[in-house]
Amino acid sequence: MENHSSCPMKIETGDAGYVLEDVPHLTDYIPNLPTYPNPLRSNPAYSVVKQYFVDADDTVPQKVVVHKDGPRGIHFRRAGPRQRVQFLLLPIIRLILVFAKGGPSLLQVYFAPDEVHACIVTCGGLCPGLNTVIREIVCALYHMYGVTKVLGIDGGYRGFYSKNTITLTPKFVNDIHKRGGTIIGTSRGGHDKPKIVDSIQDRGINQVYIIGGDGTQKGAAVIYQEIRRRGLKAVVAGIPKTIDNDIPVIDRSFGFDTAVEEAQRAINAAHVEAESAENGIGVVKLMGRYCGFIAMYATLASRDVDLCLIPESPFYLEGEGGLLEYVEKRLKDNGHMVIVVAEGAGQELLAAESLSSATAQDASGNKLLQDVGLWISDKIKAHFAKQQSMPITLKYIDPTYMIRAVPSNASDNVYCTLLAQSCVHGVMAGYTGFTSGLVNGRQTYIPFNRITEKQNNVVITDRMWARLLSSTNQPSFLGPKDVIEVQKQEEPPAQTQLLDGENSKTADN
Amino acid sequence: MENHSSCPMKIETGDAGYVLEDVPHLTDYIPNLPTYPNPLRSNPAYSVVKQYFVDADDTVPQKVVVHKDGPRGIHFRRAGPRQRVQFLLLPIIRLILVFAKGGPSLLQVYFAPDEVHACIVTCGGLCPGLNTVIREIVCALYHMYGVTKVLGIDGGYRGFYSKNTITLTPKFVNDIHKRGGTIIGTSRGGHDKPKIVDSIQDRGINQVYIIGGDGTQKGAAVIYQEIRRRGLKAVVAGIPKTIDNDIPVIDRSFGFDTAVEEAQRAINAAHVEAESAENGIGVVKLMGRYCGFIAMYATLASRDVDLCLIPESPFYLEGEGGLLEYVEKRLKDNGHMVIVVAEGAGQELLAAESLSSATAQDASGNKLLQDVGLWISDKIKAHFAKQQSMPITLKYIDPTYMIRAVPSNASDNVYCTLLAQSCVHGVMAGYTGFTSGLVNGRQTYIPFNRITEKQNNVVITDRMWARLLSSTNQPSFLGPKDVIEVQKQEEPPAQTQLLDGENSKTADN
Amino acid sequence: MENHSSCPMKIETGDAGYVLEDVPHLTDYIPNLPTYPNPLRSNPAYSVVKQYFVDADDTVPQKVVVHKDGPRGIHFRRAGPRQRVQFLLLPIIRLILVFAKGGPSLLQVYFAPDEVHACIVTCGGLCPGLNTVIREIVCALYHMYGVTKVLGIDGGYRGFYSKNTITLTPKFVNDIHKRGGTIIGTSRGGHDKPKIVDSIQDRGINQVYIIGGDGTQKGAAVIYQEIRRRGLKAVVAGIPKTIDNDIPVIDRSFGFDTAVEEAQRAINAAHVEAESAENGIGVVKLMGRYCGFIAMYATLASRDVDLCLIPESPFYLEGEGGLLEYVEKRLKDNGHMVIVVAEGAGQELLAAESLSSATAQDASGNKLLQDVGLWISDKIKAHFAKQQSMPITLKYIDPTYMIRAVPSNASDNVYCTLLAQSCVHGVMAGYTGFTSGLVNGRQTYIPFNRITEKQNNVVITDRMWARLLSSTNQPSFLGPKDVIEVQKQEEPPAQTQLLDGENSKTADN
Amino acid sequence: MENHSSCPMKIETGDAGYVLEDVPHLTDYIPNLPTYPNPLRSNPAYSVVKQYFVDADDTVPQKVVVHKDGPRGIHFRRAGPRQRVQFLLLPIIRLILVFAKGGPSLLQVYFAPDEVHACIVTCGGLCPGLNTVIREIVCALYHMYGVTKVLGIDGGYRGFYSKNTITLTPKFVNDIHKRGGTIIGTSRGGHDKPKIVDSIQDRGINQVYIIGGDGTQKGAAVIYQEIRRRGLKAVVAGIPKTIDNDIPVIDRSFGFDTAVEEAQRAINAAHVEAESAENGIGVVKLMGRYCGFIAMYATLASRDVDLCLIPESPFYLEGEGGLLEYVEKRLKDNGHMVIVVAEGAGQELLAAESLSSATAQDASGNKLLQDVGLWISDKIKAHFAKQQSMPITLKYIDPTYMIRAVPSNASDNVYCTLLAQSCVHGVMAGYTGFTSGLVNGRQTYIPFNRITEKQNNVVITDRMWARLLSSTNQPSFLGPKDVIEVQKQEEPPAQTQLLDGENSKTADN
Repeated sequence: MENHSSCPMKIETGDAGYVLEDVPHLTDYIPNLPTYPNPLRSNPAYSVVKQYFVDADDTVPQKVVVHKDGPRGIHFRRAGPRQRVQFLLLPIIRLILVFAKGGPSLLQVYFAPDEVHACIVTCGGLCPGLNTVIREIVCALYHMYGVTKVLGIDGGYRGFYSKNTITLTPKFVNDIHKRGGTIIGTSRGGHDKPKIVDSIQDRGINQVYIIGGDGTQKGAAVIYQEIRRRGLKAVVAGIPKTIDNDIPVIDRSFGFDTAVEEAQRAINAAHVEAESAENGIGVVKLMGRYCGFIAMYATLASRDVDLCLIPESPFYLEGEGGLLEYVEKRLKDNGHMVIVVAEGAGQELLAAESLSSATAQDASGNKLLQDVGLWISDKIKAHFAKQQSMPITLKYIDPTYMIRAVPSNASDNVYCTLLAQSCVHGVMAGYTGFTSGLVNGRQTYIPFNRITEKQNNVVITDRMWARLLSSTNQPSFLGPKDVIEVQKQEEPPAQTQLLDGENSKTADN
Repeated sequence: MENHSSCPMKIETGDAGYVLEDVPHLTDYIPNLPTYPNPLRSNPAYSVVKQYFVDADDTVPQKVVVHKDGPRGIHFRRAGPRQRVQFLLLPIIRLILVFAKGGPSLLQVYFAPDEVHACIVTCGGLCPGLNTVIREIVCALYHMYGVTKVLGIDGGYRGFYSKNTITLTPKFVNDIHKRGGTIIGTSRGGHDKPKIVDSIQDRGINQVYIIGGDGTQKGAAVIYQEIRRRGLKAVVAGIPKTIDNDIPVIDRSFGFDTAVEEAQRAINAAHVEAESAENGIGVVKLMGRYCGFIAMYATLASRDVDLCLIPESPFYLEGEGGLLEYVEKRLKDNGHMVIVVAEGAGQELLAAESLSSATAQDASGNKLLQDVGLWISDKIKAHFAKQQSMPITLKYIDPTYMIRAVPSNASDNVYCTLLAQSCVHGVMAGYTGFTSGLVNGRQTYIPFNRITEKQNNVVITDRMWARLLSSTNQPSFLGPKDVIEVQKQEEPPAQTQLLDGENSKTADN
Repeated sequence: MENHSSCPMKIETGDAGYVLEDVPHLTDYIPNLPTYPNPLRSNPAYSVVKQYFVDADDTVPQKVVVHKDGPRGIHFRRAGPRQRVQFLLLPIIRLILVFAKGGPSLLQVYFAPDEVHACIVTCGGLCPGLNTVIREIVCALYHMYGVTKVLGIDGGYRGFYSKNTITLTPKFVNDIHKRGGTIIGTSRGGHDKPKIVDSIQDRGINQVYIIGGDGTQKGAAVIYQEIRRRGLKAVVAGIPKTIDNDIPVIDRSFGFDTAVEEAQRAINAAHVEAESAENGIGVVKLMGRYCGFIAMYATLASRDVDLCLIPESPFYLEGEGGLLEYVEKRLKDNGHMVIVVAEGAGQELLAAESLSSATAQDASGNKLLQDVGLWISDKIKAHFAKQQSMPITLKYIDPTYMIRAVPSNASDNVYCTLLAQSCVHGVMAGYTGFTSGLVNGRQTYIPFNRITEKQNNVVITDRMWARLLSSTNQPSFLGPKDVIEVQKQEEPPAQTQLLDGENSKTADN
Repeated sequence: MENHSSCPMKIETGDAGYVLEDVPHLTDYIPNLPTYPNPLRSNPAYSVVKQYFVDADDTVPQKVVVHKDGPRGIHFRRAGPRQRVQFLLLPIIRLILVFAKGGPSLLQVYFAPDEVHACIVTCGGLCPGLNTVIREIVCALYHMYGVTKVLGIDGGYRGFYSKNTITLTPKFVNDIHKRGGTIIGTSRGGHDKPKIVDSIQDRGINQVYIIGGDGTQKGAAVIYQEIRRRGLKAVVAGIPKTIDNDIPVIDRSFGFDTAVEEAQRAINAAHVEAESAENGIGVVKLMGRYCGFIAMYATLASRDVDLCLIPESPFYLEGEGGLLEYVEKRLKDNGHMVIVVAEGAGQELLAAESLSSATAQDASGNKLLQDVGLWISDKIKAHFAKQQSMPITLKYIDPTYMIRAVPSNASDNVYCTLLAQSCVHGVMAGYTGFTSGLVNGRQTYIPFNRITEKQNNVVITDRMWARLLSSTNQPSFLGPKDVIEVQKQEEPPAQTQLLDGENSKTADN
């Protein structure tokens, strides 16, 4: 995918260090677009609920922990159907112009209902809530905006050019939120930009809803730029999907809550197995290729875990302060233990080992060696087999697919509903090239590049990780030197959050 | 309970409309209190995690949706173990100084570990997560601060003077978070101030953790003032407990998430019963004496509900735009329907009826008449019995106790852990007369009166309620006149939030 | 409904007290019926699995606990696709003739696939597994026998003459077993014999599958007799549905296992509520109008229940050995207690009270007074209110609809599958006027009158009830006189069973 | 372990082919044992419930599907507290003597309550219900028989000689049935006969309750014989534990029902993963080293499975009628599929492969190759990778430990209670060398060798397997030759059952 720096961010600044990172709008590259009265104005549900409409100037700060005299920092545009309160002082000229065009009535949208031809695509691995997001985009388009043409692209990005589409109606999607997976199918990769944009253009699609992770959102950015380059009146909006919670800026990704809940089953099973055996060890591998949020939260929620390993926190096996020493100590003290390991943890150790014993790697296959759960289980077994004095019983559980495939819980259902509706409001209002996301508890529109340029990680020198260390009593695997290094690297503190955050960071901060 | 205006709030102001509503501190009324090194400094989990410590100046705004030039508004003190950054604007140098000094004043606590004699009391109705909060207060005191004397007061406030206490140790509380209810028992009322403070004084208790709702927190405020009046070195801290989410300022109360999840079972059952009968109606009564948050979120999460009634939204039965007309229409269109009603909904209608038929009330008993679920079921049955042409089958479900009694889910477990730990940090740091609470995703310390002076309600002219109306298609039961009235009453918009808020308000805003 | 004694049972006897109560066959009243090769013979799944076919002489005894020289007793015809092993001695001439007609190959059916026009109806209250039974009848007819015309009668018996039908195909029913309720709807009553049989005749239906309880099976018997009277080639087969397990002869009814499982939630909640309050009492009402099986099994499974009340075991409130004395004792000993009450328990007490205070009854409404859960809760509250010395907290839970509406669990799913398939095999083989049922672990065909003439009850002088008494430590509420009376009434021991039975009886034994 | 043929079975015969395989009794080798009044006679729960006591002559047939004139076959002694109905003809002289000694009152036991020193040991892998069985043995001994000395042997057989014991009281075990695993720990092997019997003798233990599978029961038989050889008054009783249901004679093993239920989660997840991908395949490995009951029942309960592989049914991959051909066909027809494979399936194929490529085996490790789930996943992936034209997505789930570790469901809880109580009754009555087991729905005492001499298997030429084939539409992998062979091997039909059995067989039939 090409560099998208060609598309600079829309930045506005204000007093006291206020910065607004705004999202693009169709009118940025298509002049004289007609607008239409917002159908919500005549909707009985909304006509009496005046505060439903977001003030056009509402923004949400990325950073909420402040000092009395600190700068106000980066803000994002608040999501929602928009109105301008006219008697306010309007300091931003551009916005005045944009909305002034909407005419005396305000509350305008940039699509006539019968003009809309929307499509939805889901990409990447499964995540609880996909079907709820699909359902709510469809229902919002139909019931709020009177749209009647919504397509599901079958099987991810490559469905744009290689597959049949699925007609999505409120009736068709009525019960899908009670099922796991995605009814329109998904796949990895396949973002062949020209073919996709050709397909969009050929089919006359003018609203593209793209649900997917990091890579998928990068693809969405490219598609947006190509559409802009061609001057098409077609909006591209992303909904970030990552069960790992590795997308920056937003509070949490949908499905994360359900995943942490479902992970409890596996941890409970590991705990029962460990407790019932002499020197029993239960090992649970959880999702998290690059970040350890699921492992960390599942550990904090369970209170039964003695060791949690995540990609962000390097560890070592042998010697003083090492993992094996801790395991031995824990078994002696407590008779059993539970280990939770994120799939991306310790990959540098596995990689190092592969290099030194290339043959073994070939024979065993690449995949197997990369499974840190099996790897660590083998290391622990080998260690105690060597010792002989302390026979152990180790059980390894990989619940990944059983977690991914459940339907979203109530909390994620509400969250997905809000995400989907916010996205639809933004699209109907003509915004494009944005991702819908929750920032400090508010729905916002975030520029694509904010979402894709970094990854969200657990900050291991921050408070949430300290809480975890305190809860498990595990060693930090850090020497004094590491601490200093980490500190230098991490300052100033991260901006985003998950519950009482600062604990998740975007790497640029 | 007496007026507590005798205890004015500690207010600080700053530039651009910044206001900090601070919480009391032991040193406000006891001069020359000795301090002790914070044991966390030598705790292996925290010593390497420097950002665990909150800057003494960190505050969190109550309002996050802002305008570029709007005032900064009310802030609360951020929770957590505290350090003071002595020279602002020197982000690297200052840290060096801070830690180098270690110093007499920094990172100090106001209690020596062996001096602490803590007690925990739970009051009011059950709520998922009570046991987790108890567990985590005990564990934080023991494992973080080396405290070894923690008592459970048996059976609510009245346990202070009438019952035996329960010794709480980490071993004793180890598995309690997997069980519903509260292991130390609970009761309503019983806040006899002098007797309670006598009991605290007699037993030498110097940390009082009070978990309960609105009334309980009011009681805590009174106890705090009496302790202050007597000049005791004893801290009073509250943890807000309300399954209804009716406490203002905070994002959500613990157990709320679990309750909404568990309510899905009842709604599903009502839906199945309704679907399987001709003109089937399923009615589910959910918690919510004064506010409809559980009903609203359970409805939004389920997507199977056709009508949601809450205390904040008045309705009427007969005539055009009335409830019975809507039920009839819905049955004709769809063949079945599901109604969710918060227990406090329509109480003015029930009250009116009681007045007009006092005898019936006496015979039937007061309780029964006040059950809005039964009442509305009877009204609907009577309406269709009169009509004859349309026989209905109505099933009424009251899942209240089955919801309250479940253990907290993973999300609430993490939340309870943070609440408990934040509270303990504040107490050890000498703060008193405060409630621990999550504000815009951050743990804060909130003055008692902020929590107790108002109630949190669903704002029915705001966006979340509009989403609900849109999702159920139910009538708003509002005429144009109502809208204007409500608007006047509600402006300016509410401050607090639950997910994408503005929808919950404190009545003074 | 008329007396069905006009249709005498088909009885065969054998050595050592062997009795076979056989079911009717189309050839009993239609001579010279053609037969067709059984499609299963060419079905790949069955052609290699020779033992799939039941020997035509297989029977199952009603009584399995025997004495060495005791009589062999009543037997039922075993269910399943039938073959005759020719080289056996065939003692029953009629059967030889019947099957001999099938030609040299045996394995004949009495319906050509394209001739079959089947219908399914569900009657009465919801029960977990209804949808699984529907699904499996449809799939067995389609996939095993090549049938392609299956109708669902909408909304119970009255759907025969007042409603549209639903076309049932394997695709349509594919996922219905994962949902509670019944997709074809249900209702009570409506068995207007002539109208139903007219409807069957008019539509050309020749296989009628009737899923319902006691009353429904009586209706099925009447329909069968009318069809026989008219000489129609139309088979009537019943599948017994009763969540209460009140149908005699069979081991257990489908959905019962799921109901007992789901009841645990309510009992757990009651236990948590009771434990968390001082003198806390949790009362749970469970299904069981005339028999207490759900209450008894839910109590035995939970181990948290202190008192279980069922219709079969009379009790009294006041005085020595009475319920209130036991409650008081239990609270004093243990601080809390859980009561499970079947909805039909103590109805004679409620009835007696209604007579003596007719006014109260009118004012409160009949329904309320008949709710034994509320009634007993009120009695207990009143008792302790009078005493004053011992304030109690009582919580009452009625989980009925939440239990009925869940999908069936795995065990019931398998059971429903077997029931449905057995029923279809019997119908295709030309049997009629029978109910499919599990007897001592085997699928059998049982004559209607065996199912409808009595009700299945808990035998309170038998071992399962003793186990319960022992588990709860509750009083038996029986004086010595009662024991003798009951014994006389109950001897000889009951025949049917549920797990280690003798505990369920048919009242005629 | 030595041959136990030295201990011949106690066989009695009667009319019409009646055979009773009785269990040993202490009086078989210890003459003149005193007896004591059965404490149950004065137990309020039992004193009024006369039918609680089993008639001393009650027996239960192994075979319930009968022909009118067929032989009556093998019977087992019915479990339960025993009484003799005196006016019956008493055909067995020994029993008359035994009970006559009890005096006119009968109802005697062979242990005085204060004489009893019981111990419980759990061996082998985890199984839902272990804790319930432990709880109920303890409670039955304490509450029914007034026993107060019950030990838990820590960590399986080797706990007898190498570990501390755990004192088991009703209070200690009160809530354990709500937790998975076994609170007294378990291990494999360790049955060192002399050391165990020495330990029993040294500690003065006179009741040994052994909960475990096939191997464990064999060990129990050896321990029993050694105790008998030494002439000790110590009873050995087994409770069969096997999540796989591979123990013959009994209807089903405890925990099986829970395991099948829990397996549904994994199958659902596999189904969701498969459905959401193009040519998605979900593979689930379930327990079953030597028999496929869990796989078969989980498949029948789910209705979402397209292929079920079990140890009893050989299959082949390549060529016509092979597995790969079927997978390809299924994907083409349906777009996705779900495969359930029992862990012991296809082991002959894996073994054959290991021999032919010994190096690969060494490099990869023995374990891996033996994992049929991984093996079959690799084979399928390799097949489609070679083809190229049909890219697949395969997800492999191994839920074994997540299934084993859950607490038992309500149905298993009741079952475990009855098993435990029956066992205690038998032990108190002086029976020894027996296993408690459910036969045709009744609790019985079964001689050890009946339980250990064979294994229970799915009979693939029987009806339950045919039902499965019909439900999945999978090929039988059998040619005509196989059928004949299997038939010869299997005839006459098996005796035992699980629901509508004949489908489980003991290999000697």
